[in-house]
Amino acid sequence: MTLNRADCEALDAKDPLAPARDRFILPEGLIYMVGNSLGALPKETAARMDRAVRQEWGQNLVTGWNRDNWVDLPYRVGAKIAKLVGAGADEVIATDSTSINIFKLVVGALALRPGRSKIITEPGNFPTDLYVLQGIRDLLPDRVTLEVVERTRLLDAVDKDTALVLLTQVHYKTGEVLDMARVTRAVQAKGALILWDLSHSTGAIPVDLNGANADLAVGCGYKFLNGGPGAPAFLYVAKRHQDQIAPPITAWFGHASPFEFSDHYQPAPGIVRNMTGTPAVLGLSALDASLDVWDQVDMATVRLKSLELGNIFIEQVEARCTAHGFRLASPRDDSRGSQVSFYHEHGYPVMQALIAHGVVGDFRAPDILRFAITPLYQRYVDIWDAAERIGEVMESGAWQRPEFARRAAVT
Amino acid sequence: MTLNRADCEALDAKDPLAPARDRFILPEGLIYMVGNSLGALPKETAARMDRAVRQEWGQNLVTGWNRDNWVDLPYRVGAKIAKLVGAGADEVIATDSTSINIFKLVVGALALRPGRSKIITEPGNFPTDLYVLQGIRDLLPDRVTLEVVERTRLLDAVDKDTALVLLTQVHYKTGEVLDMARVTRAVQAKGALILWDLSHSTGAIPVDLNGANADLAVGCGYKFLNGGPGAPAFLYVAKRHQDQIAPPITAWFGHASPFEFSDHYQPAPGIVRNMTGTPAVLGLSALDASLDVWDQVDMATVRLKSLELGNIFIEQVEARCTAHGFRLASPRDDSRGSQVSFYHEHGYPVMQALIAHGVVGDFRAPDILRFAITPLYQRYVDIWDAAERIGEVMESGAWQRPEFARRAAVT
Repeated sequence: MTLNRADCEALDAKDPLAPARDRFILPEGLIYMVGNSLGALPKETAARMDRAVRQEWGQNLVTGWNRDNWVDLPYRVGAKIAKLVGAGADEVIATDSTSINIFKLVVGALALRPGRSKIITEPGNFPTDLYVLQGIRDLLPDRVTLEVVERTRLLDAVDKDTALVLLTQVHYKTGEVLDMARVTRAVQAKGALILWDLSHSTGAIPVDLNGANADLAVGCGYKFLNGGPGAPAFLYVAKRHQDQIAPPITAWFGHASPFEFSDHYQPAPGIVRNMTGTPAVLGLSALDASLDVWDQVDMATVRLKSLELGNIFIEQVEARCTAHGFRLASPRDDSRGSQVSFYHEHGYPVMQALIAHGVVGDFRAPDILRFAITPLYQRYVDIWDAAERIGEVMESGAWQRPEFARRAAVT
Repeated sequence: MTLNRADCEALDAKDPLAPARDRFILPEGLIYMVGNSLGALPKETAARMDRAVRQEWGQNLVTGWNRDNWVDLPYRVGAKIAKLVGAGADEVIATDSTSINIFKLVVGALALRPGRSKIITEPGNFPTDLYVLQGIRDLLPDRVTLEVVERTRLLDAVDKDTALVLLTQVHYKTGEVLDMARVTRAVQAKGALILWDLSHSTGAIPVDLNGANADLAVGCGYKFLNGGPGAPAFLYVAKRHQDQIAPPITAWFGHASPFEFSDHYQPAPGIVRNMTGTPAVLGLSALDASLDVWDQVDMATVRLKSLELGNIFIEQVEARCTAHGFRLASPRDDSRGSQVSFYHEHGYPVMQALIAHGVVGDFRAPDILRFAITPLYQRYVDIWDAAERIGEVMESGAWQRPEFARRAAVT
């Protein structure tokens, strides 16, 4: 039995997460389903940025490093993220970009597995993960080999020469979720390390790095964490590895005593050595404020609503659009992250037409339509309305209008 | 014949740069002389950040990548910086931190000098420059040797095994300026490359990278460019090297076609391959706006005023404080950058006392008092008043009060 719009209104009325939506600034009339690419702006983040720019920078100037505690931002933000990924407060820092953090942790982890040279990942991983590994292999040809192995055979490829496996927990195209605990156990059973890319997990699904005994992780600040465009990323190093890892970019904020201005590098103990240059205070301030939205939110509740919204979206879109060539690319069950993707042969013009009709998802080449589920600021009726509008665009053939034809895509 | 305050007022009255000060937001009653650590906030930057947060992020959301041209920010900002350092618009990008850019360019440049292994720098260089090189040596022990050679003997150490010399043009402690053209010629005469760290040069003194035939450069966005705390840094690669350099962090924004989401890394042609992860849009937006201050300003005029302000400051501080243990650490002549430093045995408590009395400089261990000269927002009377207040703090012995005694310092 299918839902109608009144059912969705009823679900919104009893939704414990409904108040969270009021903490965001959202454009009128738009159904925004790209929170897995760029999360929406929390109201308190807008206010915080006013303060960070006009008061902290403008009035306090260089004393902001102490007075406004800029110097601790990577750790304070890290501790907030740690709560969302099942890590200790001293196991996560917010710094640099996801790409740079992958580089640092992969190269740094070679010191944890001397004598082992193989790094393994899967084809179709998020491109930057693959690219960074290819660069590391080319940089250290005598030290590193790279194997890109299909998911079905990947764990079999892990052997006694394997130093590290890099996997993205939630696939950026399909939203399929890997079982972190099971994969971690299998990789570690061969003596290798696992590095989890949590870019599409953090703030999207419950994550328990410590519970899974994970070794290393990285993740993104601007997707489900709503940190703003190009927000700083984060990295996690399990406590047990922190004093052995040897990050290759040895810069002053990773020094044991940066303000002694010594000529000789001495890595800081603990997570701090994974810092590099001067922290990006404006970006970190935005991310710091955005993370406060999670204070009054329970991740299990978020996950429950995420799955419900996704299920409704799948049901409604399939009912309206299967005849128009939509084919589900995401899992139907709870091995789906917080997004729903469909294959469509003409994905590019279809998405352009949807955006023009107020349903904003994104397109991933060659044929994926992605729709993010963000329970903090999406209502049940939004999902219903989105499906209805998608049905109208397909039914009317509006997507075939010439203005939606393919041009250079950026997002 | 020494100046008096009325003379400084007269100089301000005819100063062609006087209008620039009105473009900044400055705290009342403070004489700010730390623009070489964190530049002041331009008014238009505060306005731009409102727009970047509330309109671009908040309302345009992910479409900001195209609609607000976020995707071009590293290049647009780079082109503005290029004008200040004598580079082509397609030779500079704004990205990452200075530390990370040093790592990328040094490792990347090894491909330009195959068979050469030696990297040379000087002791007392800014610590992160030394630290990053030490990390590269440890990462590539079979490929790289590092020699840290005193300035007086440095050029003699450059030989046919030397791949690269890294020097900071303006010394962070003393403000001494190296002759870029002469040093570049001497290094290149041995077939080596030069990488200039312009952190204390850019926006401080006229720089002509192309005129000097420089190979590579990096620099900082948050000092004399006023880009805000932890602003993105920049890097320069001379046109002739752009298609041979091989940056080691091969990430998606450096890919020839990032939005094809291919599994295989293909470096972009030109400067673009030196990009890494997703650009830090908020930080880049601030830096972009701050650079517009330079539109109506001539660098030669800035330099002239900088030297005049510095000369007056030296004269006035020496007259008042030589008896109290101040000793000039900076050059007296025009080989001085845009700062004046003094040695003082008790530098830490002296600087704390000065800050408490409204003259904000900074302390660099073990014994340096630094005072930045920033002609865009400093008046002649500010310099006179600063010297007078410093004299009063020393004469009164106020700096010996227990509240100024050494604690953990951050800036």
